[in-house]
Amino acid sequence: MGNIVKQVAVLGSTGSIGRQTLEVISAFPHHLRIIGLAAGKNTGLLARQINQFQPRFVHFQDKKARLPKAEYEFLSLEEMASHPQVDTVVIATSGKWGLKPTLAAVKAGKRVALANKESLVMAGDIITHEAELNGAQIIPIDSEHSAIWQCLEGETQKAAQLILTASGGPFHHYSPTQLDKVTPEQALKHPSWKMGRKVTIDSATLMNKGLEVIEAHWLFDMPFDHIKVLIHPQSIVHSMVELDDGSIKAQLSYPDMRLPIQYALTYPERLANPQLPRLDWENIKNLTFEPPNFDTFPCLKLATEAGRKGGTYPSVLCAADEVAVELFLSGRIKFTDIARLVEPALEEHQAIAHPTVEEIMAADNWAREKVMQLVGDSP
Amino acid sequence: MGNIVKQVAVLGSTGSIGRQTLEVISAFPHHLRIIGLAAGKNTGLLARQINQFQPRFVHFQDKKARLPKAEYEFLSLEEMASHPQVDTVVIATSGKWGLKPTLAAVKAGKRVALANKESLVMAGDIITHEAELNGAQIIPIDSEHSAIWQCLEGETQKAAQLILTASGGPFHHYSPTQLDKVTPEQALKHPSWKMGRKVTIDSATLMNKGLEVIEAHWLFDMPFDHIKVLIHPQSIVHSMVELDDGSIKAQLSYPDMRLPIQYALTYPERLANPQLPRLDWENIKNLTFEPPNFDTFPCLKLATEAGRKGGTYPSVLCAADEVAVELFLSGRIKFTDIARLVEPALEEHQAIAHPTVEEIMAADNWAREKVMQLVGDSP
Repeated sequence: MGNIVKQVAVLGSTGSIGRQTLEVISAFPHHLRIIGLAAGKNTGLLARQINQFQPRFVHFQDKKARLPKAEYEFLSLEEMASHPQVDTVVIATSGKWGLKPTLAAVKAGKRVALANKESLVMAGDIITHEAELNGAQIIPIDSEHSAIWQCLEGETQKAAQLILTASGGPFHHYSPTQLDKVTPEQALKHPSWKMGRKVTIDSATLMNKGLEVIEAHWLFDMPFDHIKVLIHPQSIVHSMVELDDGSIKAQLSYPDMRLPIQYALTYPERLANPQLPRLDWENIKNLTFEPPNFDTFPCLKLATEAGRKGGTYPSVLCAADEVAVELFLSGRIKFTDIARLVEPALEEHQAIAHPTVEEIMAADNWAREKVMQLVGDSP
Repeated sequence: MGNIVKQVAVLGSTGSIGRQTLEVISAFPHHLRIIGLAAGKNTGLLARQINQFQPRFVHFQDKKARLPKAEYEFLSLEEMASHPQVDTVVIATSGKWGLKPTLAAVKAGKRVALANKESLVMAGDIITHEAELNGAQIIPIDSEHSAIWQCLEGETQKAAQLILTASGGPFHHYSPTQLDKVTPEQALKHPSWKMGRKVTIDSATLMNKGLEVIEAHWLFDMPFDHIKVLIHPQSIVHSMVELDDGSIKAQLSYPDMRLPIQYALTYPERLANPQLPRLDWENIKNLTFEPPNFDTFPCLKLATEAGRKGGTYPSVLCAADEVAVELFLSGRIKFTDIARLVEPALEEHQAIAHPTVEEIMAADNWAREKVMQLVGDSP
């Protein structure tokens, strides 16, 4: 990385990915420096992060929060993401709130280390177009897309096929009847990854993998027919690419988000980090693979279809799923009802083929209200 | 590959790798053309190959052979490997006969698609030095080294560790007592790869993997302590690299030598070849890995030690093994005697630390005589 210290802004610094990003940056003070921190409501943790990292720019939602009297400038998320002093923007905000800062960052030609799924799922067309136009580089932080990125590095052509692996979640051998009885507690226990609540439930329904298929479509300009999903319960092979000659490349590691985070920050170089665990082959006996069950896990199919149709459909998918997951976590609906709410929202949606950001946001709102209607809550 | 047709000379065109090389070249008439063919004693097949490919240059050992009256120029192996009209030299000759043509090709700055193990094992120091000096590119055809090459492509740094996979051969769970009784017929039945007789026996003793460790040391400038061997009976993962940040990249495909042959010829591009089988994930359920048993398969340890010591030791290893394998195949010694003959040859050898090619060849001769002495044949 030479002698140039990269100035990094972390949007969503108090969430799971944000905290791990700060951990990685702390390990390389000669290569990476925090210039901006942005958080939502967890101002307690943000205050401690400000004390530790002394960022030049800060953003938080709760303006009444008592924050340390450090010398920082308060910026909006978009201002921070596009500020001339920022080299790399980590988008670790959750949900649709990632979209506008991502767009601001790519318009400013930044390196964008992207952990937020919704940006590409909802507005992949706009964001990849703007990135190309402005020379921005979107490096994925998702372990699957990071794996694909790593495997394609140095190849002169696009892949012939992308193979996204999925742990399958805690229920991948459950029958539909068993799935009906799943509790939020059971669903929140992911067998291999430690993640936020929303993404853990999405992993259990395979909706998460469906969203990743859409992301992969945009990140790697890959037709949906050339994106395959394989269940791989050990979560060691993070994804694979099949090349034109049939050769397959795979990326492997223990499931630890710090690796793809670090790669996105130091790319194209790799830095030795003693905190990252190395695969112990004495303990890895078996890597298994099997096709997903689209009937038992309909969310994967719903997501891929929404991705194929494009326009505002993926926004409806995201928003309907987010509301449905919340309803499941609060005990109002069954696990299997998540797909049963997303499906009619998609069916009843009057889509726009090439939406603006405002139309994308409007579709999101419509879907949220639609799901609440479907469960009997009138707006 | 643009519009430039690469002129390829195939040394060892009638052997297993040579024949598969011609098959690959036939599939891409607009990209690859045969300019030279060289064979040993199989002049019948060479005659048919000359008729089919009309090469400009030809070499064969048996000068009394009746070959077609095509218009070709007879060249020595070294002349062909270094001829100005040749772009790429495929070294598919077996044994020590590959060494001098490989050296001639690297001195002439060619692209060398290298299938011959002995070149690098016996003279890795000289060959890699000359390649660097003359801008030659040695692209391995061995599936393991091709896998490593593919995984390192695009990386800005050397690997932290190379992980060579080995099928383990037909006997990888045998006890020493069981190994004592193994017949040549049993040993020639390799579970996953179809190869020549010598390399099939070397695969069963794991000597082959030991030779590959030495090759990997030279090809990738990697200390022996950073080269690991893993038994992977399915022969799907052809090898892996561990990078500085702990990320591992692997290359996968069915065991088919045409893929690494084609990659070496078309690198850095990849061409779709309908003849190459694509991995069918519906049938690949399990990939397993385990450490090799160095006690039951002492050849792996002998080879790695010879590689570490360097100088003329690896030549003695190669030559002693070649003679011992022949003795086993002709029924004169037991399977387990192969290591028992190689070990004393290495122990009694008076090594030269930085040998010339002539000293390397002399060590080879010494080892052959030594093994014959050990089995009671005086020269």
